[in-house]
Amino acid sequence: MEAKSEPSKSSGGAWAHLAAVRRRSPLVQCITNFVSMDLAANTLLAAGASPAMVHSVAETSDFTPHVDALCINVGTLTPDWVTSMKSAVGIATRLGKPWVLDPVAIGCSNFRLNACLELVELKPTVIKGNGSEIIALSAASLGQAKGADSFHESTDAIEAAKSLARKSGAVVAVSGAVDIVTNGNQVIGVHNGTAMLQKITATGCSLAALVAAFVAIDPSQALEATVSALSIFGIAGELGEAMAKGPASLRMHLIDCLYGLDETTVLNHANIVKLE
Amino acid sequence: MEAKSEPSKSSGGAWAHLAAVRRRSPLVQCITNFVSMDLAANTLLAAGASPAMVHSVAETSDFTPHVDALCINVGTLTPDWVTSMKSAVGIATRLGKPWVLDPVAIGCSNFRLNACLELVELKPTVIKGNGSEIIALSAASLGQAKGADSFHESTDAIEAAKSLARKSGAVVAVSGAVDIVTNGNQVIGVHNGTAMLQKITATGCSLAALVAAFVAIDPSQALEATVSALSIFGIAGELGEAMAKGPASLRMHLIDCLYGLDETTVLNHANIVKLE
Amino acid sequence: MEAKSEPSKSSGGAWAHLAAVRRRSPLVQCITNFVSMDLAANTLLAAGASPAMVHSVAETSDFTPHVDALCINVGTLTPDWVTSMKSAVGIATRLGKPWVLDPVAIGCSNFRLNACLELVELKPTVIKGNGSEIIALSAASLGQAKGADSFHESTDAIEAAKSLARKSGAVVAVSGAVDIVTNGNQVIGVHNGTAMLQKITATGCSLAALVAAFVAIDPSQALEATVSALSIFGIAGELGEAMAKGPASLRMHLIDCLYGLDETTVLNHANIVKLE
Repeated sequence: MEAKSEPSKSSGGAWAHLAAVRRRSPLVQCITNFVSMDLAANTLLAAGASPAMVHSVAETSDFTPHVDALCINVGTLTPDWVTSMKSAVGIATRLGKPWVLDPVAIGCSNFRLNACLELVELKPTVIKGNGSEIIALSAASLGQAKGADSFHESTDAIEAAKSLARKSGAVVAVSGAVDIVTNGNQVIGVHNGTAMLQKITATGCSLAALVAAFVAIDPSQALEATVSALSIFGIAGELGEAMAKGPASLRMHLIDCLYGLDETTVLNHANIVKLE
Repeated sequence: MEAKSEPSKSSGGAWAHLAAVRRRSPLVQCITNFVSMDLAANTLLAAGASPAMVHSVAETSDFTPHVDALCINVGTLTPDWVTSMKSAVGIATRLGKPWVLDPVAIGCSNFRLNACLELVELKPTVIKGNGSEIIALSAASLGQAKGADSFHESTDAIEAAKSLARKSGAVVAVSGAVDIVTNGNQVIGVHNGTAMLQKITATGCSLAALVAAFVAIDPSQALEATVSALSIFGIAGELGEAMAKGPASLRMHLIDCLYGLDETTVLNHANIVKLE
Repeated sequence: MEAKSEPSKSSGGAWAHLAAVRRRSPLVQCITNFVSMDLAANTLLAAGASPAMVHSVAETSDFTPHVDALCINVGTLTPDWVTSMKSAVGIATRLGKPWVLDPVAIGCSNFRLNACLELVELKPTVIKGNGSEIIALSAASLGQAKGADSFHESTDAIEAAKSLARKSGAVVAVSGAVDIVTNGNQVIGVHNGTAMLQKITATGCSLAALVAAFVAIDPSQALEATVSALSIFGIAGELGEAMAKGPASLRMHLIDCLYGLDETTVLNHANIVKLE
């Protein structure tokens, strides 16, 4: 069905990945910002995963060995949290567990940028950000001048994402009007979601947690799992918006729809396109 | 109306306790995890109580003497929070104020287990957990090997709860398909609630805060007050689920229903059974 | 239309201020309590502003110079947060950026009272509290005995607010059945809002964040902007309550209504009265 000159829409493995998350309920440790803990935990629960908001360095050595994936998010970062993140990531990496880095607002301080650069050195499985964040992180990881903080359309960030993916070895996901996922070689576009999700705090962070749950199922398929997570979250947003009267009701319907998604709906709505 | 061979359902003191909370609006200090602060505060407000999310050790000596009850929850625990908890608990105990311990995910680290054991030594009025948590805490407080972390039906946890109640002097509540409350002698079952509440983060933590508000009314009736709080929260969940399309709308309806509960509804729905 | 003997209702600049916030999307840094971060961020987003929940002292020197306004809220205060607050406020003041102080539960400890007094010395643009908080802060800033912690109707707090405004140089807003705003000279009443907003945690904190967004547009018009923010938030609450079944659905509708407010609705509902 595919022709080189005109990439065709597909639903990829979106349904199969969601079904696997529901069946296996991966335990996802989130070391995430204070603003997003609630929505991220509810997103994981709605998708069938098990959230664990455990961030103390006093607990990582006992707890992290038992998790299926880790989500590291640098919003509301302080130095002691960086210590916990590195501790948890070290354990995850040693034990072959996948982990996701969300470099939230990386441009807001050198402290945050440097923390993210150190975390990238620790080999995340997936890096997920918006256009500005990925451009800034890609440039910094290549030793270039800091990328501008202004808004970048995700499609403009494709080259930055590919560079970052090649340099870091991570799958890189860029959220935007069209989400982009790349491993530095393949580039996939996800045409799901709705602009109003940006009017709800913590949706990006919650998406990163969902990516961790999906990648937990089979870390060797991180590219496909990330694409599926973005598509599933976007579909829930689309269905939610159809019922919503504004961002707060969208937030509610988003979670309800994620919880209730069935195969037919996913197959009908998933809009995944292989770009490169 | 009761026959020894067949325990009969009753509404216990559920309505009277809720009415007393609404009338007296007890001030409940919560030293609780970051994930649950929002929902726990809104649960207390919806029940007519006054929440105070005050956790700094710099404030306990001034503030805790004025509260009517204290809720201690070890989710997202760090060492400095343990210090605050012990400070607040020490004041509460000295002044005869009731306090509730919620040993969230006690099995996730030795740090957390040890903190909970130290808190149990400080004589909580009520300990509320799920089956796994109560089994682990009971075993550890009796010096036995750590209980498994896997899911335990609350009914399986009855013996653990009774042992913990006798050892600690606390009323012990075990949430589950049927909630169990015991003082080591009497055992009461609460058949309210709905499974979907487990798909919302922080409902267990919010229930612990509600127990603190109920126990605040008359600490000498901690067993009955705990039973009432569990029944009331469960009824709100049942009513909420009837209107919900998923966990996020259930979360909303749960709070709305708790706020709007009237006597007839409570009497019709409360399902409390004396088991021993 | 106005007569000296009978102050007449007007909509003031409420619509113009909201339209300006939507157009210019001011970046508002919030150093606020853990309970309110989520709702405050969503309030700012719904109003068209850009929230930044950045509280680490490691980030203030890089980040605060780029914000348009700052909101400082002392709920869940700990000593390290006071350090961050003073750092951010120092930068904001030096660069002429407006900032809002919300002295939440100032009466709960001497630690909190003293932190607020030190912050008042740093010249907030606006101080927003309920009657008890403003009375306590006004008395303490004038070296009087601590005001009682009991509830005070906002109208009783007018004299305290005027004294505090004169002493501090800040615009002082007192939330209550009727909100009062004063610069020590003029006194304006805002008759919008609904009592059920008090049954939702963090609405006061979210209102303070909204005031910061409004004041960001033109700090020289802080009195008018504060009045507008209170009126707009109150209108959203009124419209929300008409659809709500309880506090949790009110919380949702509040944000949806804030997002959807149009000029006609604002002009019809804003109820602003010049009192002095």
